Amino acid sequence: MPDNKSKHSIEHIGGGICAPRGFHAAGLHAGFKIRSKKKDLALIYSETMCAAAAAYTTNKVKGATLKVTMDHLADGKAQAVVINSGYANTLAPNGMEIALRTCDLTGAALGLSPTDVVVCSTGVIGQPPMIEPFEKYVPKLARIALGGDASDRRYGSAEAAEAIMTTDTVKKEIAVEFTLGGKPCRIGGIAKGSGMINPNMATMLAFITTDVDIASDILREALKEDINHSFNQISIDGDTSTNDTVVIMANGRAGNKKITKIGKGFAVFAAALNVVTVALAKMLAKDGEGATKLIECRVSNAPTDQIGMRIAKTVIQSDLVKTAIFGSDANWGRILCAVGYADGAFNTDNVDVTLESREGAVTVCKNSFAVEFDEEKAKSVLAEDEIRILVNLHDGMAEAEAYGCDLTYGYIKVNSLYRT
Amino acid sequence: MPDNKSKHSIEHIGGGICAPRGFHAAGLHAGFKIRSKKKDLALIYSETMCAAAAAYTTNKVKGATLKVTMDHLADGKAQAVVINSGYANTLAPNGMEIALRTCDLTGAALGLSPTDVVVCSTGVIGQPPMIEPFEKYVPKLARIALGGDASDRRYGSAEAAEAIMTTDTVKKEIAVEFTLGGKPCRIGGIAKGSGMINPNMATMLAFITTDVDIASDILREALKEDINHSFNQISIDGDTSTNDTVVIMANGRAGNKKITKIGKGFAVFAAALNVVTVALAKMLAKDGEGATKLIECRVSNAPTDQIGMRIAKTVIQSDLVKTAIFGSDANWGRILCAVGYADGAFNTDNVDVTLESREGAVTVCKNSFAVEFDEEKAKSVLAEDEIRILVNLHDGMAEAEAYGCDLTYGYIKVNSLYRT
Repeated sequence: MPDNKSKHSIEHIGGGICAPRGFHAAGLHAGFKIRSKKKDLALIYSETMCAAAAAYTTNKVKGATLKVTMDHLADGKAQAVVINSGYANTLAPNGMEIALRTCDLTGAALGLSPTDVVVCSTGVIGQPPMIEPFEKYVPKLARIALGGDASDRRYGSAEAAEAIMTTDTVKKEIAVEFTLGGKPCRIGGIAKGSGMINPNMATMLAFITTDVDIASDILREALKEDINHSFNQISIDGDTSTNDTVVIMANGRAGNKKITKIGKGFAVFAAALNVVTVALAKMLAKDGEGATKLIECRVSNAPTDQIGMRIAKTVIQSDLVKTAIFGSDANWGRILCAVGYADGAFNTDNVDVTLESREGAVTVCKNSFAVEFDEEKAKSVLAEDEIRILVNLHDGMAEAEAYGCDLTYGYIKVNSLYRT
Repeated sequence: MPDNKSKHSIEHIGGGICAPRGFHAAGLHAGFKIRSKKKDLALIYSETMCAAAAAYTTNKVKGATLKVTMDHLADGKAQAVVINSGYANTLAPNGMEIALRTCDLTGAALGLSPTDVVVCSTGVIGQPPMIEPFEKYVPKLARIALGGDASDRRYGSAEAAEAIMTTDTVKKEIAVEFTLGGKPCRIGGIAKGSGMINPNMATMLAFITTDVDIASDILREALKEDINHSFNQISIDGDTSTNDTVVIMANGRAGNKKITKIGKGFAVFAAALNVVTVALAKMLAKDGEGATKLIECRVSNAPTDQIGMRIAKTVIQSDLVKTAIFGSDANWGRILCAVGYADGAFNTDNVDVTLESREGAVTVCKNSFAVEFDEEKAKSVLAEDEIRILVNLHDGMAEAEAYGCDLTYGYIKVNSLYRT
């Protein structure tokens, strides 16, 4: 886990993925979303070559775009990302052809090699993919992204964040500023995803840009470690998508002393990255399909990090916990039950559970037994839209968090009708 | 898996757990369900000592009654079972005391040693347990169960099946007859459970009686093998309860040559047992909280039994598949996606998917690619209340099934308000 002490020097700023120097972005409606005029095609572009790394879904069924992206990132470099939403290029016979052709079109429009372009796709699985919207709109999108200088186009991040949304109800964007050896550095991020989210990685997409100068193998290391504590600790419905991807691009424009190894500079960068990814992870969880509440589970005094992480995630994945929170019902027996079926060797005899929100905190269980508590107070705590479930195991020193949402009538509505 | 050829000689009969000779049962309202007058206390009694075995939840948090039952079944013998519904004796400081006292009361009422009594409890976790209803009603329940001879009291099974229900909407009961060496033999079963069901074992309770003469170690073997293909292949919401228990009691009254080893007699018994347990498993799945449809996933041509079972279970556990089926939406991409994140090494490139019900069958995916299909026909197939998802992997010879239900507005309603 990143060093908390470094966090005080990390400031939130505007501009999203366009906050780091030299990055451009844009989004428009190209026609992938056939029932609306919403934006469905996004582009991210760096003026100079980037060190780049990505993390992908663990689903054995992988989208064609993922296979192309993996190939294009094998050299640890990229300069642009093109993303469509509305249909997922997955399980289609001509999927690879379309994904490669999309990179060709994007490379041509930006004057780049197609192999320096990353391609992503999200939406309904199994519809026949279309090349026409790419042919018609990629050149226009490139012109928009490149129009004016980067500082004029900082709202390009918001456009791109909108263009990658599917069932999301709000766009997800963040940027932070911090210093490395006296040089101001920035990291920005956008993300999408609200169903089929149980990343390892799940259709969650996240794109992170930074102007930090960092070697690509070290960047990959930072991302790999980070997602275990951020995106991989979210779950909305336990489903793992075929298309999940997190991409990070670092163009080095901040002018810091290049980070080439694990050390102090790396720790500062990792802490800032974690602020960005955890913020995006929480935005994703809170905007879960049909969700009305963000649920954070914080496990303390677990025997190991691994066990703590597994317990936290098991609790926020329990349909019974999720529906109880939706109903503002302090049904703590379901929390203990979920703790009990989390994988791993740990003691379940001394578990304390506290429910917390901005309305206050109520301890509902001590040493794994019921305690008397004020039901009215618990109801008012749980009526808030950000709920924390604090689980103290009294069985070690490790801490962990996971992020989820309540399970509601809205989830059923969205998902029983989504395709049609 | 049991030999299918033996199944033709297995006939369904009435009488449930009272169909096997020498078993009595009864159920009444004792006051554990405080908001209704529904039955909440059940008793099962055999006139003679039984070989007995059980399978339990894998949850690390275990109900006090489970601990007592494990202890009482350590010698492979039992003669009675007492069960309450309405609150689960779990996570209460005096839980063990109450569970032991319940066995004392039941033993006294039936003239048995308390250690030959099995005790189970199901309902809300963490409420303070009550001994008074047991003290007041166990003697009365024993008098009812023993009143008249067993054949007069065959409806006692239905009473007991009702008395173990919590959020169940229908009681679950079955009995079969078959022959062993010319002797007619019977197996009967009752079960409850409709939420928190993802057995390994999950609050599912099932009680199986038989008059077959079988050694208790062989009986344990039969049950252990059987539940992997029956109860452990059900999932309603992925939650694993603290109190799940399947108990089987065999009193030997059929007079067959005692089964003391794995062999032909054992195979016949195992096949009949599997008919009972799969029937109960499907009844449980179909009565899942809020469910409107039973979903069976049948996987064929998988590399191994294990992988087939895991894939089948992963498909019926996917919230996205469950909501699509609720909406009668042939969203087969979600099925392929769930197949792809099932654990294990198998090929996902040649998967065929067919949706089937009594309205007919529609193939929606061939070799892992979309095929054109009649959407209207698919809608009418999925509008039925028993849906089969056939997944052919073309990657081996193994077959497997799993049983689940759709995820609906009703599930949210039941579980956001259950405790209060």
